[in-house]
Amino acid sequence: MSFRIALLWLIFLPAFAAAQSSDIRVNGERLNDTMQHMHTFGENAEGGSDRVAYSNHNHVALSYLANLMLQSGLRPQVDVAGNLVGRRAGRVDGLAPLVAGSHIDTVPNGGHYDGIVGVMSAIEVARTLHEAGIELDHPLEVVIWSNEEGGKTGSRSWAGTVEARELDLPSLGDKTLGDGMAYIGGQPERLAENARQPGDIAGYIELHVEQGAILDREQIDIGVVQGIVGIKRWYITVRGFANHAGTTPMDQRQDALYASALMVAEIRRIITGEPGSQVGTVGRLDVRPGAPNVIAGEVLFSLEIRDLSMDKVTRLFARIEASLTGIAGANDVDVSFDQYYESPETPTDAGMQDLVRESAAALGLSSRDMPSGAGHDGQSMKGIAPVGMIFVPSKDGISHAPSEYTSPEQITNGANVLLQTILGMDRLLQ
Amino acid sequence: MSFRIALLWLIFLPAFAAAQSSDIRVNGERLNDTMQHMHTFGENAEGGSDRVAYSNHNHVALSYLANLMLQSGLRPQVDVAGNLVGRRAGRVDGLAPLVAGSHIDTVPNGGHYDGIVGVMSAIEVARTLHEAGIELDHPLEVVIWSNEEGGKTGSRSWAGTVEARELDLPSLGDKTLGDGMAYIGGQPERLAENARQPGDIAGYIELHVEQGAILDREQIDIGVVQGIVGIKRWYITVRGFANHAGTTPMDQRQDALYASALMVAEIRRIITGEPGSQVGTVGRLDVRPGAPNVIAGEVLFSLEIRDLSMDKVTRLFARIEASLTGIAGANDVDVSFDQYYESPETPTDAGMQDLVRESAAALGLSSRDMPSGAGHDGQSMKGIAPVGMIFVPSKDGISHAPSEYTSPEQITNGANVLLQTILGMDRLLQ
Repeated sequence: MSFRIALLWLIFLPAFAAAQSSDIRVNGERLNDTMQHMHTFGENAEGGSDRVAYSNHNHVALSYLANLMLQSGLRPQVDVAGNLVGRRAGRVDGLAPLVAGSHIDTVPNGGHYDGIVGVMSAIEVARTLHEAGIELDHPLEVVIWSNEEGGKTGSRSWAGTVEARELDLPSLGDKTLGDGMAYIGGQPERLAENARQPGDIAGYIELHVEQGAILDREQIDIGVVQGIVGIKRWYITVRGFANHAGTTPMDQRQDALYASALMVAEIRRIITGEPGSQVGTVGRLDVRPGAPNVIAGEVLFSLEIRDLSMDKVTRLFARIEASLTGIAGANDVDVSFDQYYESPETPTDAGMQDLVRESAAALGLSSRDMPSGAGHDGQSMKGIAPVGMIFVPSKDGISHAPSEYTSPEQITNGANVLLQTILGMDRLLQ
Repeated sequence: MSFRIALLWLIFLPAFAAAQSSDIRVNGERLNDTMQHMHTFGENAEGGSDRVAYSNHNHVALSYLANLMLQSGLRPQVDVAGNLVGRRAGRVDGLAPLVAGSHIDTVPNGGHYDGIVGVMSAIEVARTLHEAGIELDHPLEVVIWSNEEGGKTGSRSWAGTVEARELDLPSLGDKTLGDGMAYIGGQPERLAENARQPGDIAGYIELHVEQGAILDREQIDIGVVQGIVGIKRWYITVRGFANHAGTTPMDQRQDALYASALMVAEIRRIITGEPGSQVGTVGRLDVRPGAPNVIAGEVLFSLEIRDLSMDKVTRLFARIEASLTGIAGANDVDVSFDQYYESPETPTDAGMQDLVRESAAALGLSSRDMPSGAGHDGQSMKGIAPVGMIFVPSKDGISHAPSEYTSPEQITNGANVLLQTILGMDRLLQ
């Protein structure tokens, strides 16, 4: 090869590689075959999946996936938290890895798409790159996080936030978290070694089913996730006076359930009273004594508010607190508020959002920006790496149920967006 | 005695006896001493009463009361249903008895007044008549009904409505109803012999604590009971769709709990929307799945409506049914109604009401007409005899709790009204 030709190579190779990689597509049929094969591991009589974290089904599925990683040019290794990490080397020395992750553990009697779509697609992306002989500048790691459904234990070990006492807690199966990690090949006593620092990861990307019905109803292919919402939860206690339902006139009642009904209606009014994608839910409500012939003496109900902006969550709650206190006073009952849970919002990286949006557009797919109302492993990467997320539609928004569904075509679309996004990350990220 | 003097006796005796009997009063101190003595039988560490029907405490208390009946000129006898009946003969052959009844069994951790006030006062009335040497035309029976709190079993045996299968049901204590009756001296296998026919009883009167706060708040001495309310109870099921509280936008929710909250508020609006003493209560409400992060898929709640007029109960329900169906439609949920209980109203006899009202007035006591929102043994006498009821105040309306309270003076007032009412019944009833 002459110097001149070699020089031309040096000049045109990047442009040539970029042109080549923008045309590359995953093998959708193969991807959906592997999706289908995952049913093998824990499908129950109802057609749902009982592949809870650290179960035997979970363990066997990981063996299959380790093998699939090998076929895909990924070197599989189980880390100390039981995460299965498949790695391919990068072309440029010293670059931190691009990480594409999701999970394969399910809730009891869960579905076949939540988590699984992201894992199978990330492996298919690696396989596609491997077959096409495309090297990335960065190393690429496909991570199957352990115990997402039971508390994001695997990804949180990378954030260094799993406390030692958690290892003694029960998992969704029959083992403690610690015993479960060890069962699938982890070393829980060395968990602290898993913690990543800012700069250890170049970028984190996750493809996931929406678990809501926004894309399905609007018939949009791809959700560009703006962030994972912040969540606060309270228990609200309303104290009236339990009394005889036959002998207490209507105007002498201190009816905790009647007052609570007014409050539940008022909460909806306040949550929907301003524009935005915030949601507020009262999902639990317990009545004491709870007998048809006794006026309710005490009601405890939950309140959950989620939004991309925790400031908005806080502001909406302040309005609810003031309004409910007024309702209590007008109905001769007491009300008290006890916040018991807070999960901060995780905005995704603006550059990552652009990559997802542009990848979808280049593939001729429709997309819209949207929050993730559900939690995801990506939250654990907050402060460590730029985070991006891609949503594909969930039929009727059904999630955590045997009937959750995303079509083969939608899954292939998502995997192609994931592929193009990873190629973009490789170009843009350090 | 000359004929002339004998004639004068014949003319003046009724007037003389009436004058004498209208001045007669119970021994309030003695009555309240016996009330106090009843604490002996089953008082618990909290100061409440655990004298449930057919318990050992119940049994021992009945022995004490049988003895007290003997001292009061009553011949005690346990009937086949375990009712303790103390009888004194009447002056006129062939007249059916006047019956004054109530109960001494309590709910678990109940109070010392519900039922007991009526029993102790009726015995005191008999003792007062006995000591004063006043004979009535009618026989007088003081009845301590068995198992009022567990289902009015004793009084219902007089109505002939206790079914054989009920004897195998558990009582509030550790025995079946049948074993319990036998334990306190009844003969459950002969229960059918207890049934009374119209005419077998001249009239039924019961003194009871109000179990509500109307008399207490209005500082009125005596309630003239217009009747025992009719009751209907329904279970109302609201079906929405359980979904993810984070991923389901507010405008895509089929939230069974939010819709139920609107319904509970609407029920109150309808019940209080017209004049009268009707009451409507939602006392039980169960949410499924009942998790803070899941939109409620299904809610079941109870509805109870009580009024002296069952027609009004039916009419109010029809309005509620229509309105709730509209709320369901507007909120994309289904609603269904299942009536599971009905207890017909028992109006008291107008002549008996007059007697109670006039007796109170003659004693210088204030009174007001009112319904009984609670059920009582008198309901069992419906169709068999004219029924009357006298209420005395319950402090703060508290009932079925250790803190239920009626003052000694209020009890004495009630007993004196009972005495005068029985004397009036003796004059007026056949």
